[in-house]
Amino acid sequence: MFSFDITTRVEYVDTDKMGVMHNSRYFLFFERGRTETMRQLGIGYKSVEDKGIMMPLVEQFARYISSAHYDDVLMVRTCIKELPKAKIRFDYQVIRQDNGKEIILCEGYNTLAFVCTDTNKPVRCPQWILEKLAAHW
Amino acid sequence: MFSFDITTRVEYVDTDKMGVMHNSRYFLFFERGRTETMRQLGIGYKSVEDKGIMMPLVEQFARYISSAHYDDVLMVRTCIKELPKAKIRFDYQVIRQDNGKEIILCEGYNTLAFVCTDTNKPVRCPQWILEKLAAHW
Amino acid sequence: MFSFDITTRVEYVDTDKMGVMHNSRYFLFFERGRTETMRQLGIGYKSVEDKGIMMPLVEQFARYISSAHYDDVLMVRTCIKELPKAKIRFDYQVIRQDNGKEIILCEGYNTLAFVCTDTNKPVRCPQWILEKLAAHW
Amino acid sequence: MFSFDITTRVEYVDTDKMGVMHNSRYFLFFERGRTETMRQLGIGYKSVEDKGIMMPLVEQFARYISSAHYDDVLMVRTCIKELPKAKIRFDYQVIRQDNGKEIILCEGYNTLAFVCTDTNKPVRCPQWILEKLAAHW
Repeated sequence: MFSFDITTRVEYVDTDKMGVMHNSRYFLFFERGRTETMRQLGIGYKSVEDKGIMMPLVEQFARYISSAHYDDVLMVRTCIKELPKAKIRFDYQVIRQDNGKEIILCEGYNTLAFVCTDTNKPVRCPQWILEKLAAHW
Repeated sequence: MFSFDITTRVEYVDTDKMGVMHNSRYFLFFERGRTETMRQLGIGYKSVEDKGIMMPLVEQFARYISSAHYDDVLMVRTCIKELPKAKIRFDYQVIRQDNGKEIILCEGYNTLAFVCTDTNKPVRCPQWILEKLAAHW
Repeated sequence: MFSFDITTRVEYVDTDKMGVMHNSRYFLFFERGRTETMRQLGIGYKSVEDKGIMMPLVEQFARYISSAHYDDVLMVRTCIKELPKAKIRFDYQVIRQDNGKEIILCEGYNTLAFVCTDTNKPVRCPQWILEKLAAHW
Repeated sequence: MFSFDITTRVEYVDTDKMGVMHNSRYFLFFERGRTETMRQLGIGYKSVEDKGIMMPLVEQFARYISSAHYDDVLMVRTCIKELPKAKIRFDYQVIRQDNGKEIILCEGYNTLAFVCTDTNKPVRCPQWILEKLAAHW
């Protein structure tokens, strides 16, 4: 298992007239968490695309537990719990720290496929990605 | 059960560098489908808020089956399969019509709670909403 | 001169915690107005790209006069005042109709270049676009 | 004059099918630059709202000079050139650093009014904001 935290801030454009962060924006926080987690693992998504692999989303889910507000500094915790085969799954928690306690505002996951850019066909997780993951396991 | 279709178009801003609609935008299509479905039922979301009820999302899910491309005219089919109690669930299909055949690009759902604006506490589905739904069942 | 109106609605995601449409969303309404205006002229942007021309923005401007609110039905009036040479300029008004009176909420413009996809170099406005425009002048 | 730089990264959702950052996203980078510049000055926007002042945009402009690409690390330079009276103006440059050289991708500005939340009427720039600005001039 591999886990990585980033911090990010709720911007004005993230809010809606209910005064809280709009439900769709959590998926952008998931993307942000995943991007930095992959970079941390040495498999930055740009380098994945440069090597001829795209990783389209297969499915994703979010459970909204508590609201995020404007200017909140949040933590996005991204977790890979299993080594990927045909797909890779990322689990997320969006967390607000409150006096040292962690309040989970939202949790979710998404799964991504590996697709060869040339053939546009799904492939198994490339060996070089598996090796990078294994090095951090 | 109640089902309602809208058509909507993929805009340039909806696309990403993979050349297809970004995964997060489907949730905006869900919102668009839900908004017009509620309006069709006589429970337009603005009127719900004006009556002191907010409907925050509790959870949502999307499964991505096939890609949507720039300028595609898509159908969003929104479906309420059960009368709500404490929560209401909407099911969605994002569909491209191809020579009279329906290709499902994405399917998903979300559930929403009913929250009293004054107390900020969850409440059961208001009677007037149930009556509007019943009238279309 | 050529002018074309579309109607569009302010969605929940367009709003921010100030309770009004976020400033950045007006530029998406400009894009929506331009897209349909070009389609109306027989120069749909997809067909332009298919013919090997991209039209990146060179500059854009918006003046915010009055607020747009959730669920407002707005009109986007797009206007081409001069036949393009190296660039094309679109002028926009975002309008709310109020008892038959037009309230301008926002006005702005943008200019776009013509770029050859193959060479990535700017070119003059293609002849076929000029002809389509001339036919509606 | 006061100037402040932040760095920020182009995310996948910022790109469009042209392979570059979408024109509307630069305005979000302006917002991000302005937010951190105001925080740096001790006039964080949240504290401004908490003191009963909103700062809606009056106008904004962007000139697009060169493209930003996925995963680019960009600098947003925000500059206040004059002490505000009824309005405040921010000037922006979005910059990519290339071998120590600064490439300006986009430049623009926006002006914001000061509005009293209670009365919803425009007011002059509050004295406490002027003092914070003066302290950094």
